[in-house]
Amino acid sequence: MSIQQPYLLTPGPLTTSASVKAAMMKDWGSWDQDFNTKTAEICQQLLRCANASEHHECVPMQGSGTFAVEAALGSLIEPTSTTLVLVNGAYGKRLVSLLTRMGRDCDVLAWGDAEAPCARAVADRLAASPEIGHVAMIHCETSSGMLNPVAAIAEVVAAHGRELILDSMSGFGALEIDAQRTPFLALISSANKCFEGVPGFGFVIARRDALQAAQGRSHSLSLDLHDQWQYLKRTGQWRYTPPTHVVAAFHQALKEHAEEGGIAGRHARYRANMQRLVAGMRQRGFTTLLDDAWLSPIITTFLSPAHSDFDFSRFYAELKARGFIIYPGKLTEVESFRIGSIGQLDVRVMDQLLAAVDDALATLGVDDARPCADAVALN
Amino acid sequence: MSIQQPYLLTPGPLTTSASVKAAMMKDWGSWDQDFNTKTAEICQQLLRCANASEHHECVPMQGSGTFAVEAALGSLIEPTSTTLVLVNGAYGKRLVSLLTRMGRDCDVLAWGDAEAPCARAVADRLAASPEIGHVAMIHCETSSGMLNPVAAIAEVVAAHGRELILDSMSGFGALEIDAQRTPFLALISSANKCFEGVPGFGFVIARRDALQAAQGRSHSLSLDLHDQWQYLKRTGQWRYTPPTHVVAAFHQALKEHAEEGGIAGRHARYRANMQRLVAGMRQRGFTTLLDDAWLSPIITTFLSPAHSDFDFSRFYAELKARGFIIYPGKLTEVESFRIGSIGQLDVRVMDQLLAAVDDALATLGVDDARPCADAVALN
Repeated sequence: MSIQQPYLLTPGPLTTSASVKAAMMKDWGSWDQDFNTKTAEICQQLLRCANASEHHECVPMQGSGTFAVEAALGSLIEPTSTTLVLVNGAYGKRLVSLLTRMGRDCDVLAWGDAEAPCARAVADRLAASPEIGHVAMIHCETSSGMLNPVAAIAEVVAAHGRELILDSMSGFGALEIDAQRTPFLALISSANKCFEGVPGFGFVIARRDALQAAQGRSHSLSLDLHDQWQYLKRTGQWRYTPPTHVVAAFHQALKEHAEEGGIAGRHARYRANMQRLVAGMRQRGFTTLLDDAWLSPIITTFLSPAHSDFDFSRFYAELKARGFIIYPGKLTEVESFRIGSIGQLDVRVMDQLLAAVDDALATLGVDDARPCADAVALN
Repeated sequence: MSIQQPYLLTPGPLTTSASVKAAMMKDWGSWDQDFNTKTAEICQQLLRCANASEHHECVPMQGSGTFAVEAALGSLIEPTSTTLVLVNGAYGKRLVSLLTRMGRDCDVLAWGDAEAPCARAVADRLAASPEIGHVAMIHCETSSGMLNPVAAIAEVVAAHGRELILDSMSGFGALEIDAQRTPFLALISSANKCFEGVPGFGFVIARRDALQAAQGRSHSLSLDLHDQWQYLKRTGQWRYTPPTHVVAAFHQALKEHAEEGGIAGRHARYRANMQRLVAGMRQRGFTTLLDDAWLSPIITTFLSPAHSDFDFSRFYAELKARGFIIYPGKLTEVESFRIGSIGQLDVRVMDQLLAAVDDALATLGVDDARPCADAVALN
């Protein structure tokens, strides 16, 4: 993997291949058949990745991933329905903010940053609350790195006759999901995560019957998923100007995803990256926020060292000077930082990173990477 | 201008320079200082282009230009205010659709596709309608190519103590606009028009006092212009993931815009393109929808030939085979097509296009390019 540095060890935007970027070296007419073919092929391949071709449609949406999530929530949920949101981090909270802003009722089940949503608690809440029509949750909660127990919760949601909306922004493409075994109304993700495209659009894999019922329901014209879907079906074109170069790059990224063995292949590489990273960091005295059972192959949160000379800004700058960009923490309770294992990276890059961590700690004068006892107690 | 073909003779996405596309060959961390600097420089330069640094702020918004328009309308207009929309084409109608969908009151003054909005009619309506707080209009109505009389209307709006919202999507960057002489509350445009970037975001140049008053007003979290502005001010970062590569390309595009002499330089090139195009097409018997006074340097609508062998799809395909992609018409009343004069094009490219038009007409067997008499009567 010969990639210009710095490597982005982050949950997206991430390091993409040179060939993905090279696909942006041409200008495309957004109404031309050559471009429309790319859009159609992208949608078909994404449906196949989720084994969802039979009952679902894939609708792309311009903007960041959050725009696609807002489009799905605003278009697919009946205004009279209450949505139960499962929150164990910043992205779960964002689902609540999105629904609240558009005036939809929501109910919240919340856990701590280092806790997984509990299927039994969901079952109890659904049994007690007939007004809840939908359950919305995060697949991989990027603020902690936790891989949430989607299969168990999907089973409970289906058993209670409700609909699941899955924000799999940082997970889809590397985490297995099968619409035939894990029923969902909608799965939302974006171009610049595990499929290793560049940022500029997201997409919603939504059940056809729900899309059909969504006409005129969206609070926003730009974010109307039904209109986007219908326009695409009728004309082959996006309803408003798509990010043409980003779409062309994603088309190439999907080709490379398939060549790597699809979701299974990509999961294997990311998992190896994460294992090498976590083992190496632990060897150096660092502690992960989460127990092994909840670690994801996407991103890992490490507790900041208690050492008085550790300073995240300096640590970040030292690693950046050595060709690695890491990610600040997003926890409210403890000092932490995050390192991603997705993108065009392999275990050799992880080894190089670990060497850079050694150098950075030495430069800072930090000879003990253990966190303070209070932080560990959260684990 | 050595550019790979086909040339996009359209109102965006358009043909960009090789150096603009080359700026996308690197991956950027969207929270990293190097990227934040690019965003800040872009906003500063856009403000300078409109001579608006004193009282305005520039806020970028992910998505197509329409997303930025929706963000401006939803964030800057008080929910109790009625907005007068001036409509003489598809993009004026879209302003009405955006406002209607978000539940805002609007009043409409409409003209035909080939008619310009009339400042006196606007004055009469404002005098009679105290509930109107804002006037929204299109700078260059891309569906016809008409250059709307912004200066005259801005004067009327200001004289009546109302606020102007200017959708200058396809115009800003090549049409002069000076906030000191043409008062506006907001001007909206996008990356992939006259600044010659690639598509993926738009931006709003909005008066600071109105942005400050907009907290919590937007119907949409993703499209909340106030939140985006505040987050940018506080952190230097976009609130949600920006299209990093598209932003880097736009940064390069702005550099090239300045090198060409800014708005004046670009206007001169586009105007020369348009004049060469229109003269050449008229020489071949084609008729423009608009009188010369209303032609813009952005895009020109030509009436389709009445000849029974003329077929737009075949004409399009023949031109495409020769390296030129033109644009279908967007008029409801007559058959037409459009040819843009913006992007990395000069008069030599226009000469090559005219030669291709000759070839295409010969292949189709069309020896008379005049439109039917009914269509001309609209002119």
